[in-house]
Amino acid sequence: MYFASDNAGPAHPAIMQAMADANTGYALPYGADTIMDDVRAQIRDTFEAPNAAVYLVATGTAANSLALSCVCQPFETIFCSPVAHIHEDECNAPEFFSGGAKLTLVGQGDKMTPQTLRTAIANEETRGVHGPKRGPVSITQLTERGSAYSVQELTDLCAVAKGFGLPVHLDGARFGNAMMALGCTPAEMTWKAGVDVVSFGGTKNGCVGVEALILFDPDKAMEFELRRKRGAHLFSKHRYLSAQMQSYLADDLWQKNASQANANCARLVAGLRDTETVSFMHEPQANMIFCSFPRAAHQRLHDAGAMYYVWSGTLEGDDPNEMLEARLVCDWSISDALIDQFVDLVRGNTP
Amino acid sequence: MYFASDNAGPAHPAIMQAMADANTGYALPYGADTIMDDVRAQIRDTFEAPNAAVYLVATGTAANSLALSCVCQPFETIFCSPVAHIHEDECNAPEFFSGGAKLTLVGQGDKMTPQTLRTAIANEETRGVHGPKRGPVSITQLTERGSAYSVQELTDLCAVAKGFGLPVHLDGARFGNAMMALGCTPAEMTWKAGVDVVSFGGTKNGCVGVEALILFDPDKAMEFELRRKRGAHLFSKHRYLSAQMQSYLADDLWQKNASQANANCARLVAGLRDTETVSFMHEPQANMIFCSFPRAAHQRLHDAGAMYYVWSGTLEGDDPNEMLEARLVCDWSISDALIDQFVDLVRGNTP
Amino acid sequence: MYFASDNAGPAHPAIMQAMADANTGYALPYGADTIMDDVRAQIRDTFEAPNAAVYLVATGTAANSLALSCVCQPFETIFCSPVAHIHEDECNAPEFFSGGAKLTLVGQGDKMTPQTLRTAIANEETRGVHGPKRGPVSITQLTERGSAYSVQELTDLCAVAKGFGLPVHLDGARFGNAMMALGCTPAEMTWKAGVDVVSFGGTKNGCVGVEALILFDPDKAMEFELRRKRGAHLFSKHRYLSAQMQSYLADDLWQKNASQANANCARLVAGLRDTETVSFMHEPQANMIFCSFPRAAHQRLHDAGAMYYVWSGTLEGDDPNEMLEARLVCDWSISDALIDQFVDLVRGNTP
Amino acid sequence: MYFASDNAGPAHPAIMQAMADANTGYALPYGADTIMDDVRAQIRDTFEAPNAAVYLVATGTAANSLALSCVCQPFETIFCSPVAHIHEDECNAPEFFSGGAKLTLVGQGDKMTPQTLRTAIANEETRGVHGPKRGPVSITQLTERGSAYSVQELTDLCAVAKGFGLPVHLDGARFGNAMMALGCTPAEMTWKAGVDVVSFGGTKNGCVGVEALILFDPDKAMEFELRRKRGAHLFSKHRYLSAQMQSYLADDLWQKNASQANANCARLVAGLRDTETVSFMHEPQANMIFCSFPRAAHQRLHDAGAMYYVWSGTLEGDDPNEMLEARLVCDWSISDALIDQFVDLVRGNTP
Repeated sequence: MYFASDNAGPAHPAIMQAMADANTGYALPYGADTIMDDVRAQIRDTFEAPNAAVYLVATGTAANSLALSCVCQPFETIFCSPVAHIHEDECNAPEFFSGGAKLTLVGQGDKMTPQTLRTAIANEETRGVHGPKRGPVSITQLTERGSAYSVQELTDLCAVAKGFGLPVHLDGARFGNAMMALGCTPAEMTWKAGVDVVSFGGTKNGCVGVEALILFDPDKAMEFELRRKRGAHLFSKHRYLSAQMQSYLADDLWQKNASQANANCARLVAGLRDTETVSFMHEPQANMIFCSFPRAAHQRLHDAGAMYYVWSGTLEGDDPNEMLEARLVCDWSISDALIDQFVDLVRGNTP
Repeated sequence: MYFASDNAGPAHPAIMQAMADANTGYALPYGADTIMDDVRAQIRDTFEAPNAAVYLVATGTAANSLALSCVCQPFETIFCSPVAHIHEDECNAPEFFSGGAKLTLVGQGDKMTPQTLRTAIANEETRGVHGPKRGPVSITQLTERGSAYSVQELTDLCAVAKGFGLPVHLDGARFGNAMMALGCTPAEMTWKAGVDVVSFGGTKNGCVGVEALILFDPDKAMEFELRRKRGAHLFSKHRYLSAQMQSYLADDLWQKNASQANANCARLVAGLRDTETVSFMHEPQANMIFCSFPRAAHQRLHDAGAMYYVWSGTLEGDDPNEMLEARLVCDWSISDALIDQFVDLVRGNTP
Repeated sequence: MYFASDNAGPAHPAIMQAMADANTGYALPYGADTIMDDVRAQIRDTFEAPNAAVYLVATGTAANSLALSCVCQPFETIFCSPVAHIHEDECNAPEFFSGGAKLTLVGQGDKMTPQTLRTAIANEETRGVHGPKRGPVSITQLTERGSAYSVQELTDLCAVAKGFGLPVHLDGARFGNAMMALGCTPAEMTWKAGVDVVSFGGTKNGCVGVEALILFDPDKAMEFELRRKRGAHLFSKHRYLSAQMQSYLADDLWQKNASQANANCARLVAGLRDTETVSFMHEPQANMIFCSFPRAAHQRLHDAGAMYYVWSGTLEGDDPNEMLEARLVCDWSISDALIDQFVDLVRGNTP
Repeated sequence: MYFASDNAGPAHPAIMQAMADANTGYALPYGADTIMDDVRAQIRDTFEAPNAAVYLVATGTAANSLALSCVCQPFETIFCSPVAHIHEDECNAPEFFSGGAKLTLVGQGDKMTPQTLRTAIANEETRGVHGPKRGPVSITQLTERGSAYSVQELTDLCAVAKGFGLPVHLDGARFGNAMMALGCTPAEMTWKAGVDVVSFGGTKNGCVGVEALILFDPDKAMEFELRRKRGAHLFSKHRYLSAQMQSYLADDLWQKNASQANANCARLVAGLRDTETVSFMHEPQANMIFCSFPRAAHQRLHDAGAMYYVWSGTLEGDDPNEMLEARLVCDWSISDALIDQFVDLVRGNTP
């Protein structure tokens, strides 16, 4: 019963098979492999972006930090949510890769709004050269609280950024989950809404470790390549990244995995909704939820070996009825049986 | 006929199998997987270093840059060969990860000597705070010209460094090839000689993409972990790095692959030695050689699709007898038939 | 009528005279001048800190950034007020000099409290290597809103930092103003309270451009020297920095200037207090105040050439009675006549 | 008898007077002072460059590092002489300000030639993204060995840089000394020859501490301003920098000081030329020379308190006839009597 994150389940068998299939003979290193040519073509097609520059790296933090470093000067500030992965979970990687840029936290909670974003941007550059210059806006989709910005919300945020002449980065570590929740196209969720550069996640959605970085404006392509190498993120045996991404895109595997993860989470939500002691902190939309239920239920789960983050409060405590918040994430692979077992434990039934 | 590098052949089947075997159920992310526990134990055992801190990253540049950043302040300078990978082939990654340290090039050619190293170190810090402070010494083993430092040479270089109180890093992208050429133990080639931190390469020697970073003094372990995360080199699905390294160490696969690559190269050398038009620039020792032969031979190879670097001169030219230098690298997988075909083409025989 | 800042008035004549006196014959460069020996001795004596390392730089941002870079790793975060100069007014200099550290904003308003500081520190390092490590606490004294932390408040903040094993930096750009307001000794306001490193400001208090950096623990002295040189803040003709600081310390000039500036501000406050339309945002303590009064008064001041920051709202507007906030700073040199003229204009009297 | 550097003599009285004259009333901070308007106009006029962006900083290292950081990406390499100040005497400041760029050392000795520069540039970017990209060329004028590039030499070097599309920086810490030695105009020695950005030194030539940074193409002006602030090199009481530079430019004081320093050095050279035991390492051109003479003469100088760098060898030694090299620098202020005394001591006469 692993609900801690979508980075701990197995890779999809098709991904493993693709890596095995790629393991024959010689292939040009450093991204010159022929599989990468196909990946590039597929991504351009998927995103309806025939001129996009497309690159692969192995971690989400690399995708985000390198992307931001291409659109941010060291004397600028990046606008993001206070709970953005780039702020909370990358150990200063954006500051490192950008050469010392600042992050300006926008509003409260996981979602920026046009109003909070406009206020935050307007507040910068009121101090001449004394404060940093305004830099890129970084949007996390899914947010770190499991919410999806609607296409309209994305469009409105991008419009604010564009009004100030600022580039927009989308951290799409859970791109597929968000898109399947919204029912839109990749283009609608990105460049058509005003996004300039996307971290298109594979790792959390069934891959071994691969993320695509898509620059809709290819002017920064060579700079990205140099920063990738300098950041030690250019793989010599690149074909194994390419093979993962090729397989991930083929037959819409990425969409199927994301749909499955979302469906798994919906089953979990449905089970918990029937449980009167559970209350949800955010409206469930995709594959990550935050909800609270009594300590006694947490203790039953813990004793049964369920793994997830107790988000607020601590398992230890005297009051069995105290409500503690849980973060629960479903990946594509978790079984109905485990989900139902989890729900039963929350309810207090013997599983 | 791919002799351009040892990073373009396939991974060893055992490595692929290990990744496939690891692809089952849930595994704790970010290096907390149980396979990593075994890897750590194996490496400590292999290196006779029970207290060593051991980490995995996916690229050699990451291993080198992160290692150096843990033992180098930004106001220091790193001593290395003028042809060191960290100087010529990492697009300023050491400068980036160290926060702006300098590289001081020692002597001429691929090998530092105690004399050239002592002179270079002595020349620094003669200018008070105006020049950089002396920082770590970085040794490449194999060198970028295919030579192996003997254990005595390593010991002597480390003694010079220690005499100035400086730490020593070993770039072991081709660690196995060097060790099998020398016939020594891992400990003899590292900490017993005076090395403090090692990049222990897997990628060029049959893995998909994994390098171990070994800190014999674990005091810097937490700093390394933080710098790895900040450099975006901490893998969430870390088990696939662990599985590669576990399999690489098991049954001495790494030594067998390295021996095979060296043997392949020895076959190539033997064939070329019988060819009167070939002269060697360095004494062949492991799996990489530099030799020169007439342009006509290069053209035959080129026409037959052989891939390798023409190291000096250009394929185009009027004089068929002009000697052009080639860099030739054998990986573990290249077949006797292809090696012989290459030799035949140099000789001018119809293959 | 210049109330915009204390960085626009003239230097004290004694400072200018000291620079002129120093302008004779040869003096060893780069801080080896004999005047610096006296400065070092005087500062150690003034701060009752016989082992302190003492250095001079020419700007407050240099003092702060270099100090922080000596006590902060690039994978750490600095704790400070949301209105701290290092956050709002140094264009990412702390991020630059630290190599990419983050700043964590503590609480609301200009003053950190033990409670808000403890909460902020506790919240970091709850995410393993994913978030930054806890780094130094930086306290601004005077705050950027003109308040002075009491010695007890400083002691309590330092105790929180020490409880977590963190170093404490004091940004004393207005050190003298704060100390004279509190009536304590330099030692009481620094190391006796738990401060480890101080930026001791001269520029805003009658000097041309000089700040002392005092490290009570001299272990980092050589690192500071190297970082100062690397930051291009080591002056060749250092004697002119030394001469300023020597004269600033002699006969307690720094205390006299600060007292005079505070007294000037007290006169301004007294005048404004008698003006019923003025309300103060913070209790005036030293030489900087924030207060609000009607737009009509602002317009009279503006027309008369008074210079200061309209801190909230804009001068242009229809409603003459709308209250707009002003930031008013007095330096040591401003005359009673100009202060009285300013007050008269607020009152609406013809000056 | 101070011949160690031109940074240890007094400032010219006119410079001190200008600072004193500026010390009256209020002046807008941070470069908005009215004196700076005049400085900007004078420099544009002096350099026949009506559109140039002009800024002031207080140290030569700041001028060089900030200038280079505006024309160099962190994944590039800077081309300079192996004895360039930016390489040997700035403790990694160019690496720091550029965010980790490399320095590629061109040829041997103090002067780059078109041939050595072309070779060095051509050698870079032969390795795709694995090596750094070509960045700016930095020329030191005077060189660190006291030589002046002729206008033709500068033009030829710039032509090589331009042929590769690279910007050119001139480190003019001793700009005046070089120009007066050549007898050319400021424009001829800079933009007319192909220089893009100049560090125009004042400190070594009679100022207290001020250098002008001149960007002939003002496109980078705002970036320079932000980098200056972020580097902590923007002075609040900027008027004292402006006043120095205004006075330095007025009545060609900078040219007079430089001529005087060169004349002082010529007197020294003439005296030493008459001394048969002295041999010159470089042809004396301006105010810095390198020459060798017997240890006995060095010891006489040392005993008499003369200060200068023994450039090779050590004062201590048995052989009174061993030739040791000296670096001797004359500033504008050194008297004929001291020069003659120095020469007499070399000759062995009782002074």
